[in-house]
Amino acid sequence: MKLEGKVVIAQGGGPTAVINQSLVGVTLEARKFPQVTRVYGALYGVQGIVNEEFVDLTQETTHNLEQVANTPSSALLSTRDKPDEKYCMEIFKVLKAHDVRYFFYIGGNDSADTVRIVNEQATKADYEFRAIHIPKTIDNDLVLNDHTPGFGSAARFVASAFTGVNLDNRALPGVYIGVVMGRNAGFLTASSVMAQKYPDDGPHLVYLPEHPFHRENFLDDVKRIYDLYGRCVVAVSEGIVDENGVPIVTKLSGNQEKDAHGNVQLSGTGVLGDLLSELVRTKLKIKRVRSDTFGYLQRSFIGCVSDVDQREAREVGERAAHYAIWYNLDGSISIQRTGFYSVNYQLENLSDIAGKTRTMPDEYINAEGNGITDEFKYYVRPLLGSGFPVAHRLRAPKVAKILTEK
Amino acid sequence: MKLEGKVVIAQGGGPTAVINQSLVGVTLEARKFPQVTRVYGALYGVQGIVNEEFVDLTQETTHNLEQVANTPSSALLSTRDKPDEKYCMEIFKVLKAHDVRYFFYIGGNDSADTVRIVNEQATKADYEFRAIHIPKTIDNDLVLNDHTPGFGSAARFVASAFTGVNLDNRALPGVYIGVVMGRNAGFLTASSVMAQKYPDDGPHLVYLPEHPFHRENFLDDVKRIYDLYGRCVVAVSEGIVDENGVPIVTKLSGNQEKDAHGNVQLSGTGVLGDLLSELVRTKLKIKRVRSDTFGYLQRSFIGCVSDVDQREAREVGERAAHYAIWYNLDGSISIQRTGFYSVNYQLENLSDIAGKTRTMPDEYINAEGNGITDEFKYYVRPLLGSGFPVAHRLRAPKVAKILTEK
Repeated sequence: MKLEGKVVIAQGGGPTAVINQSLVGVTLEARKFPQVTRVYGALYGVQGIVNEEFVDLTQETTHNLEQVANTPSSALLSTRDKPDEKYCMEIFKVLKAHDVRYFFYIGGNDSADTVRIVNEQATKADYEFRAIHIPKTIDNDLVLNDHTPGFGSAARFVASAFTGVNLDNRALPGVYIGVVMGRNAGFLTASSVMAQKYPDDGPHLVYLPEHPFHRENFLDDVKRIYDLYGRCVVAVSEGIVDENGVPIVTKLSGNQEKDAHGNVQLSGTGVLGDLLSELVRTKLKIKRVRSDTFGYLQRSFIGCVSDVDQREAREVGERAAHYAIWYNLDGSISIQRTGFYSVNYQLENLSDIAGKTRTMPDEYINAEGNGITDEFKYYVRPLLGSGFPVAHRLRAPKVAKILTEK
Repeated sequence: MKLEGKVVIAQGGGPTAVINQSLVGVTLEARKFPQVTRVYGALYGVQGIVNEEFVDLTQETTHNLEQVANTPSSALLSTRDKPDEKYCMEIFKVLKAHDVRYFFYIGGNDSADTVRIVNEQATKADYEFRAIHIPKTIDNDLVLNDHTPGFGSAARFVASAFTGVNLDNRALPGVYIGVVMGRNAGFLTASSVMAQKYPDDGPHLVYLPEHPFHRENFLDDVKRIYDLYGRCVVAVSEGIVDENGVPIVTKLSGNQEKDAHGNVQLSGTGVLGDLLSELVRTKLKIKRVRSDTFGYLQRSFIGCVSDVDQREAREVGERAAHYAIWYNLDGSISIQRTGFYSVNYQLENLSDIAGKTRTMPDEYINAEGNGITDEFKYYVRPLLGSGFPVAHRLRAPKVAKILTEK
């Protein structure tokens, strides 16, 4: 009745602050089952599977696993490979050779697709095999999920960063543009609004990939805010596009470096922020214009993590082991919100998650496409976790002037 | 005997994570003295003084002051103005009109110079007046100080950021270049080495303004590390210069925007990182090259602060009040290291601090000018504060391959 064999766990795509919680969740839970002969980790994601690069997590101390769980970025290392049918056949061949009966892949929607294809091949080969996709992405763009592990901590970083730069911009006024990760989904950029506490706090403007970006509207928006407050803080998603879906960074720069998936390079360069700054400087004649690109810090910064995110990332890993080993099921674990704030986990069909992208619902974006609604704040608040730092201002009264006004 | 009158406190230059600790230290301490009739804060630094923009901190609740102390960035707002003789005469005129007898200016070496000139004018005018400079700068570039308030928290941010990006770069290998603030002094960039735990951890290369930057040496260094580890993490100071003192950013880009002090714009743009990436990509033919510019996050990020830095920033503020109001002295407060780790505060002559810049001592930089010595690590470690997060790796043994090697 019980399916005896090995477990393989792998991590794919961009790392997050809590991806190792999921790894450790599966590992510790899987090690408890007598039918599990070994728990292997594949190095460098699916690439490590085809190269037979496994480490034996059964021989890892529980204590060290707990330390690793609290360390950001994929402890098993990662890959950008997006396997096709043939690649997946290689994966399956190696897994079978090692008597692997349980496969857990921690990643985004591309990883879900890999799990789906490998699982199909096992079925075709009549090889008894369980395959589970464990969700992970700072972009929060998996369908059927209320949110995804990794997003909460990245959102906490972005909100903390904007809390600080808003204070900095208030002390030394000017225009500040912060560029946030997110190719198709604006959730992470939208999280910047959690920095707003006082009525005039930034970010004053937020631009997402979900809404076409118009140069002229952008300049009008910045001018209006700058005239009002004498300063302006802008949050921009790296993935903003025009009405034809052309990335603004391509349009403004002509740069075309593409990755393995045929996508334009968005991260690891400050060019979008610099181009938008230049636009504001030349068109609006504002002298102090600065931009920062948050880059890799937002997904790997050690010491800025949401405890809610940590807990959930651990639990999706544990639940994955339960579904596969206890219940003998395949699928993708999803997070469902059941209250304010409570969650439950359930199993989705792999084909319902694989390769699909969720974007920001309309009710989270204002009509003008340059700001975020309170519905989103209510949605995102619990995901930031406990102890989210809050800024305070002086409230001391003004003193009457003595000398003549200059 | 006791000098009766008002206190004015102002904050100048770039904000830090703990600059409000100093503000609150002076305010709470000054409010205890009966000869102090009022404690005023000047808005926007010296600019607020000449415009008579004061708030009455005597009427601020102690509770709110404590909340503000824990908030990064100048609560009294700031200025980039660097007053000359005439400007300082205006300052003195306003301070005298408001019966101000105690002036505290929290800032870097430019601010110390302002305090010095204003104090000279009071002496000339035979006006009984105490003036104290309170140190603050993330650059850690004040002479006669072991280190400066604000540096420890910024160093903690930079070390945390590199801990994360090193893990990220290990998971998805390539070349990563992180650009850190610091026009003349490399202390902050050097702090990145606190991310090194395992022998192959980055940053593998560190370039500072103290050592001329040679394009060819840089490319050779990156190639050597990349050949060795299959990846390379680089920390670069925004202020790196060639052998003639010409900023590398100017040399590579031709960009020349200058600030009020006649300095080339270094922060608030990703251009240096992008240019260095381009160099590595084209000359070394390495495909995955990424750069991040840490920008304003490193001086304002809420939630990443050194408790040692907080404590010391508070104490320099308190000691400033003591020297001026108890002892009737002028000067600049300095931090002296007395053990590992303990400090003491003392009063320096304003003219010994004003306008002078301290840079990294030779013994903190390796002979090649591309790395940092253990002496620096020993120096900087206590300044990062308690609970500095540490990364952990898996130590699980490798599994033997079954299929033929591909």
